[in-house]
Amino acid sequence: MTEIVSTQIQLQSRPDGWPTPDDFRTASFTYGDLEPGQVRVRNEFVSVDPYMRGRMNDVRSYVAPYALGETITGGAIGRVVESAADDVPVGAAALHQHGWADVVQADASTFRFVPETPGLPLSLRLHILGMTGLTAYVGLTEIAHLKEGDTVFVSGAAGAVGTAVGQIARLLGAKRVIGSAGSAEKVALLTEKYGYDAAFDYKDGDVRGQLADAAPEGIDVFFDNVGGDHLEAALDAFNDGGRAALCGAIAGYNTTEKAAGPDNMANIITRGLTLKGFTLAAYLHLAPEFQEKMTGWFAAGEIAYDETIVDGIENTVDAFLQMMKGANTGKMLVRV
Amino acid sequence: MTEIVSTQIQLQSRPDGWPTPDDFRTASFTYGDLEPGQVRVRNEFVSVDPYMRGRMNDVRSYVAPYALGETITGGAIGRVVESAADDVPVGAAALHQHGWADVVQADASTFRFVPETPGLPLSLRLHILGMTGLTAYVGLTEIAHLKEGDTVFVSGAAGAVGTAVGQIARLLGAKRVIGSAGSAEKVALLTEKYGYDAAFDYKDGDVRGQLADAAPEGIDVFFDNVGGDHLEAALDAFNDGGRAALCGAIAGYNTTEKAAGPDNMANIITRGLTLKGFTLAAYLHLAPEFQEKMTGWFAAGEIAYDETIVDGIENTVDAFLQMMKGANTGKMLVRV
Repeated sequence: MTEIVSTQIQLQSRPDGWPTPDDFRTASFTYGDLEPGQVRVRNEFVSVDPYMRGRMNDVRSYVAPYALGETITGGAIGRVVESAADDVPVGAAALHQHGWADVVQADASTFRFVPETPGLPLSLRLHILGMTGLTAYVGLTEIAHLKEGDTVFVSGAAGAVGTAVGQIARLLGAKRVIGSAGSAEKVALLTEKYGYDAAFDYKDGDVRGQLADAAPEGIDVFFDNVGGDHLEAALDAFNDGGRAALCGAIAGYNTTEKAAGPDNMANIITRGLTLKGFTLAAYLHLAPEFQEKMTGWFAAGEIAYDETIVDGIENTVDAFLQMMKGANTGKMLVRV
Repeated sequence: MTEIVSTQIQLQSRPDGWPTPDDFRTASFTYGDLEPGQVRVRNEFVSVDPYMRGRMNDVRSYVAPYALGETITGGAIGRVVESAADDVPVGAAALHQHGWADVVQADASTFRFVPETPGLPLSLRLHILGMTGLTAYVGLTEIAHLKEGDTVFVSGAAGAVGTAVGQIARLLGAKRVIGSAGSAEKVALLTEKYGYDAAFDYKDGDVRGQLADAAPEGIDVFFDNVGGDHLEAALDAFNDGGRAALCGAIAGYNTTEKAAGPDNMANIITRGLTLKGFTLAAYLHLAPEFQEKMTGWFAAGEIAYDETIVDGIENTVDAFLQMMKGANTGKMLVRV
């Protein structure tokens, strides 16, 4: 047993609009010897996720705001390097929520020790095999009630959740899958790698028109990661009885003024639409069902994924900011 | 058998914004002798409803637009004055959708001959015992999934649907029922006659603030007849897991510019809200269940109602316009 210095990223001030590096600070902790029952985990990958932006505000939400001066918590995965827990061997893969740190030390009960599949990197537990994949699955099944033959529109389709949504929608029987993304390269990837039937670059403008062109027969399901003009476009494109799973609204996360909502809310009534927002906390009971299906799809070679990797815990804030600006394709990760 | 002259109101031009009397015309028909299977019905009451405004536009909706130069169809009730249908006696009460006319003549199959309850006026079939009551019931049960102990907010609560919603919500176990209306008199009526726990006048402004004051513990269910600032206020007041039944959006029916939507749509995600729009066509199978419950409540003296009555078929357009401006308390009807 030895002392170890841990580098951790903390929130220093609440961002007003777009976060800046000054809103964060890098802190060093020295962990002493392990207490009985504790393990020490060296992270291999740390996750940066859009929902974290919400936690940086001091407002009511489904998770408590981050406290100023404390380490940013969130998904990460690493390996046990020392153990004072009887049943946890050194080398075990440890998934946890201790967040933006290179090394963490805590009671073994705060980690989930996960089996490893040869050939699959640990990082997949932070996205397609983890919460991100589950988010896509829950949104399509429990929230939007996807049916065979549905036409599905996914906003922010080249992100971590979006790439999963398109593939899962197809595997669950969608007839046509349409995605939006923020660059020509991402748009190409959607149709060439992720099985989207049509995709468009929302930065070309006229999201309404582009969606209408891509969905001449309308849409039945909308999986929204963006909000704003994307939700408005979907409300115009919906067929009667359409269902929206509202998962994220990244378009508004860094605005200081509240943006007006869609100008076509009345379509919700006349077309009998359902808009349902969700966060994963209420749906974790679906994780086993999801794991079983996703593992099978993965084994069958049905699932593609991308990772955009930034190296070094000291670059975590930069990775987070780049992700908020859409610099990632697939999952944005920090490799420690 | 004799010929008869029928006075009918037709749509002459599509209103741009608020309808004016010039958008309508009064036509006279002469019906000849009855064909076999036909009945002649003299209307007693003709219904004017908010949804009719939507049908005056030439846009996609859940029902086809009214055709120019044809009689405005919609709910009405009268009595058979001549019958060439074997099983339909003169004097039978006839509920139908032939609309804005004093006398109509058509195949008996286009009428529903309804039993009468002594002491209950026929007009109730056009509201609390008819589609209006069913709308309230369906919205609370199938759409908003009202649970015992819920706090319910109803916009446009003094209208035909709203007065029904408040009472049904209470009878189904709501803990607290809050309503908005457009005058001090209506607000008083809500708490004194319709069992609302709290009510406010939206014309006083600050719907958000007034709702927050009336619902210090938040709302669980929102039954919306108004849209606009009312929906926005509800999105701020919702507790986690809240459910909105979007039934009407009268605030926007007569605007020529599309109004911006709520600025707080992100609450749908963070609070796990469900917004579900509906029109009655998909829920008519619930009519028998509703009729049974409502008849029981009525017999037990649990149901209050109001009618705002305008006399004369020639005043139907005026009644419609007054209703759109909120001049009615409870159901607006034309007595023929």
